[in-house]
Parts: sequence; structure tokens; C-alpha cells
Amino acid sequence: MTHLDRINAAIAAIAYPAQPEQLYEPIAYTMSLGGKRLRPQLVLMACEALGGDVERAIQPAVGLELFHNFTLLHDDVMDRADVRRGQPTVHRRWNDNVAILSGDAMLTMAAQHIAQAPSKCAQQVMELFNRTAMEIYEGQQWDMDFEYRDDVSAEEYLEMIRLKTSVLLGCACEMGALIAGAPHDTCERFYKVGEQLGLMFQMQDDLLDVWGDPATFGKEIGGDIMNNKKTFLLIDAIQQAQGDDALELRRWIHDEEALRNMKVPAVTAIYERLGLRQQLEQRMAALAADVKTQLSLIDMDEEHRKGFERLVDNLLHRMS
Amino acid sequence: MTHLDRINAAIAAIAYPAQPEQLYEPIAYTMSLGGKRLRPQLVLMACEALGGDVERAIQPAVGLELFHNFTLLHDDVMDRADVRRGQPTVHRRWNDNVAILSGDAMLTMAAQHIAQAPSKCAQQVMELFNRTAMEIYEGQQWDMDFEYRDDVSAEEYLEMIRLKTSVLLGCACEMGALIAGAPHDTCERFYKVGEQLGLMFQMQDDLLDVWGDPATFGKEIGGDIMNNKKTFLLIDAIQQAQGDDALELRRWIHDEEALRNMKVPAVTAIYERLGLRQQLEQRMAALAADVKTQLSLIDMDEEHRKGFERLVDNLLHRMS
Repeated sequence: MTHLDRINAAIAAIAYPAQPEQLYEPIAYTMSLGGKRLRPQLVLMACEALGGDVERAIQPAVGLELFHNFTLLHDDVMDRADVRRGQPTVHRRWNDNVAILSGDAMLTMAAQHIAQAPSKCAQQVMELFNRTAMEIYEGQQWDMDFEYRDDVSAEEYLEMIRLKTSVLLGCACEMGALIAGAPHDTCERFYKVGEQLGLMFQMQDDLLDVWGDPATFGKEIGGDIMNNKKTFLLIDAIQQAQGDDALELRRWIHDEEALRNMKVPAVTAIYERLGLRQQLEQRMAALAADVKTQLSLIDMDEEHRKGFERLVDNLLHRMS
Repeated sequence: MTHLDRINAAIAAIAYPAQPEQLYEPIAYTMSLGGKRLRPQLVLMACEALGGDVERAIQPAVGLELFHNFTLLHDDVMDRADVRRGQPTVHRRWNDNVAILSGDAMLTMAAQHIAQAPSKCAQQVMELFNRTAMEIYEGQQWDMDFEYRDDVSAEEYLEMIRLKTSVLLGCACEMGALIAGAPHDTCERFYKVGEQLGLMFQMQDDLLDVWGDPATFGKEIGGDIMNNKKTFLLIDAIQQAQGDDALELRRWIHDEEALRNMKVPAVTAIYERLGLRQQLEQRMAALAADVKTQLSLIDMDEEHRKGFERLVDNLLHRMS
């Protein structure tokens, strides 16, 4: 049984009360839509690599996946997103109130699962989780704030991404290490590994939105461009574009009537003229190398190290 | 220093990060609006009465108050309520997104405070809290479901109130008992005491909405009547009204254009003809007597028992 199989079995085994239907059905619906299950996999991988009992990590791992899906559920309300994983979002399928309340319940369910960590580390695990959750709310708030600002710097974007995405991957790795009873510096190092994986993950997300294959990507290409979403690419482009490119980019950003089949290819062409795809791919490759160095400093056997390295390579080359 | 002073000092001492402003300011705003602080007071009272160290109960008590205010914040979004404690609600003063996200953060902050319970009981305290939170979401969902139903029975209403209101007071009492290290049956008995206090609290709320003094009540009289809110009074009236009273009541419930200065006195008059005020006051008095019996079975000194009995009497006669 792979880690993913175990996780999916544990998610399928969550017992939802039948009533009240509008509270629990949206949670079961959300959890049934799948996803990469990256966070719970990291919990189990880190725990196993450090000699921990994977069985004792499964419920906390499922808790992190519940938490992650809770954040998506509430973010989709805030962003007015209609589709998630190819299906209607909860607030579209039901309504805003159902999405708010069932999201709240998912957050508490997440805490219930995470509290099932072995008692010797349960308090540390809960502290890590709660601290991470606060950072993620901060990241989401920055993300919303940035929509109304034209002067977001690369540093600010990086910090927002760290909070909104990276810390949860860091938390997942460290949680596995804590459950394995690893020493403090190993836990910290694994946190850093997860954080950097999160950054790579976001960079690849930004790339896929522009150069992904619509058939495998699962959503329409160019969504970030249409929404002027402050991605690594747009922020780099604003900083690096000169002359006509700078003028044209500014025009597209402020053109609220722009047609998708005009704006997306035009902005993509600017990104390509500036060589931003190569730049970002180089940054990702450098991050990947750094993660592998970090992994080489953690005491684990070759098989588990290879497992993590494969994960890094998969993240680097993922198409969806 | 009274328990209330300690609680207010601890609430005033909560350190909110300055940024992002839209995440933390609404939380500070909500917590600054005051309130009876009934739940944290119950935690400290129960803890002290059972010989526990009140200092160690303060942070968990503040956590329950954060949680309670989080539920009000999200409920106000769902109910589209404009005013809370005489001030604009968070979603009115800021917007829905701010209310959703800062509410989420309050729930996690609540868990952070509650996790500061002494380690010997921290896991039990967290379990109690999480279980209670789930019940409260269920209660809120039933409450919203009931709006669209005409056939809510007295039993269903009672169970909804138990979930939405009573269990949190039960949780507060039991939390204090757990922190004091009380034996299992004492914890359970205190939970029941809190639950019954919650029921009395809601009954008085329903009464005050009709017969309260607008000057001390803090909100406009008759809000429940105007909204056809299923209260103890309306449910009893629907069950007991006969002939002309039954017809008139039905007419007011279905008259969506009804003027406040017509509908409120008319429905109040029906309640009075049916003697519902006396009936409800009798039920409250019976509950109060039962709570006092429960209290007499718990091993605590006279001074603390008297403190609880005063609280029961205050709840019975509160005007706001």
C-alpha cells in the first residue's frame, strides 16, 4: 500500500454524521474531489524516513488535508471562484452560508484529527499547526490586499507566497518529523525543506497558468493574466520590462475590457521576450538543488532520500 | 480582583500583530465591544469552586470567549445582521471577506488559548472544546434550516437551542472542572449545570425580546416577532392557540408587509392571552431549582455554592 493509498483510505473512512445534511455533505463533497494529497503524503514520508510509525501519523496527516481543503473552500467564497478541481465550488453548488459554516466545521474537524497525534508530541504538533494556520490566514489577507495595490514588490510577493502556500508544506514535513520523535534540528531542517518545496510548487503553478497544456492542467490557461494576478511572472515583468514592452504591459493591465484571446497571447509574448520562463525555471532548479542538499544533511537511509528526491523532480516537472 | 476583572484584563492583554491590519483589527474590535463574559466566568468559577488554580484557567477561559465571539461574527454574516452590542457588525464595518477570514483566525486563536490548559488535562480540554464546537455548528445549521420550515416541533427547537447555546455553557463549566483536576462524575455534573444554565439563558432571551425594557435590553423589542423567529414563545403559541387566536397568529406570520407597530403588539397580545409568559417563567423557575439541586450534589464549600446560586438568580432576573 502506498502512502497515497493509505491517505485516501483514511479520507474515505471519515464518518460524517447524516444530519444536518447541509453541514456535513459539503465537507464530504469537498474531500471526495481528490487532489494531489501532497501535504498528508509529506507527513507520512517525513515520519517514515525518520523511523517513525506511519500508522500513528495517518490521522494528523488527514487533518492537514482537511485543513488545506477548508482554506480552499473559504478562499473560493472570498475569491468568488466557481470551479475547483473541475467541479462547482461549495458556495456555487449550495450557497455562501453553507460554505462558511461547513468550512468552520472542517477547520474544527482538522484540529480533531491532528489532536490524535501520539500524546508525547501532541502539544507540539498542535502548536505547530495553530501557528501555521495563523500564517496562512495572514498570507490570504496579503493576497487580497495586493489586489488593490500596484506597487507589490518581489519581496512582498515572496513573503505572501511563503505564508499562503509554503508554510503548510513546511508544517507537514515537520509534523511527520515530530511524530517520529526526531531531534529539534532535524524537525527544523525538514520544515525548511517543506517550505522550499512550497515555493517551487507555487512557481510551477505560475508557469503552468501561462505555458501549461490545457488538456492536462485542468483549468483554462491564462487565468492569472486575465485577472492581473500578481504572480512571479507579472512581478518580474513589471520590474524588467523597458520601453514598448513596459508601455504595452501597463496598457493590458489597465484594459478592463480586454478580450481573453487578445490579452493572454500578448502578455505571454512579453514574458517570452523578457526570458521570464527561463529565469523562473532556473530559480526552481536552484531551489531543487538546495532542497537536495538539505535532504543530504538529514540522517535517513538511501531509499527514503531517493523518495524525497523523486518528489522534488516530480514537482519540478509536473504538468497539472 | 473579581473573575470578571481578571478576564477583562487578560482579554485586553491579547497581543494582536499590527499587520495585516484587516485580519487583526476586526478581532480586536470584536473583543473590545464587551459582553457579559459569561462563559469565561463559568470556567473560572467552576475551577475555583473545585479547588483548582484559577490562574491556570484564565487563558483557556479567554479562548472560550474568543470562540464565542467568533461564532457571533460568522453568524452575523450568515444572518446579515447589521448591529451587535450596539455597534456595526464586522461585515458591515469592513466587508464579508474580512469577516470570514478574521473569524477563521479567531477560531484558531481560540484553540491556541485553550491549548494553554495545564498539560495533564490539555488533551481532554481540547477534545471537549472541539466536540462542543462541532455541536454548535450543528445548532447554527439547524437554526438556518428551521427558517424554511413551518413544522418545527418544541422538541426540535429545544435540541437546536441545546446545541447552539447550551453546550458552550456546559463546556465552560466542565473545562473549569477539568483544569481543577476534578473526578469524572463531577465534571459531568458541572457540564449538565452549564447546559441547563444555557437553556435558562435562551428562555430569558426569548422573553426579553417581547417584554424587555428597550432602555436596558440594548436592542429593539420584537425583533424575533418581526422575523417569525422560532422561539419558545412562538412554538408554544402555534401549538396552543385555538380559534381566532390561531387564525390571527397564522395571518401575522404570513403577512410579509406587516408593520412593526401593528404586528409586535398583536402577537404579544396573543402570547399574553395564552399565558405564555407565565408558562415560560415557570419552566425557568423549575430549571433554576433543578440546577440548585445539581449544585448541592457537588462537593464544594458554601461560599462557592452561593456564588453559583447568585448567578442562577441573576440569569433568572436579568434585564439585558
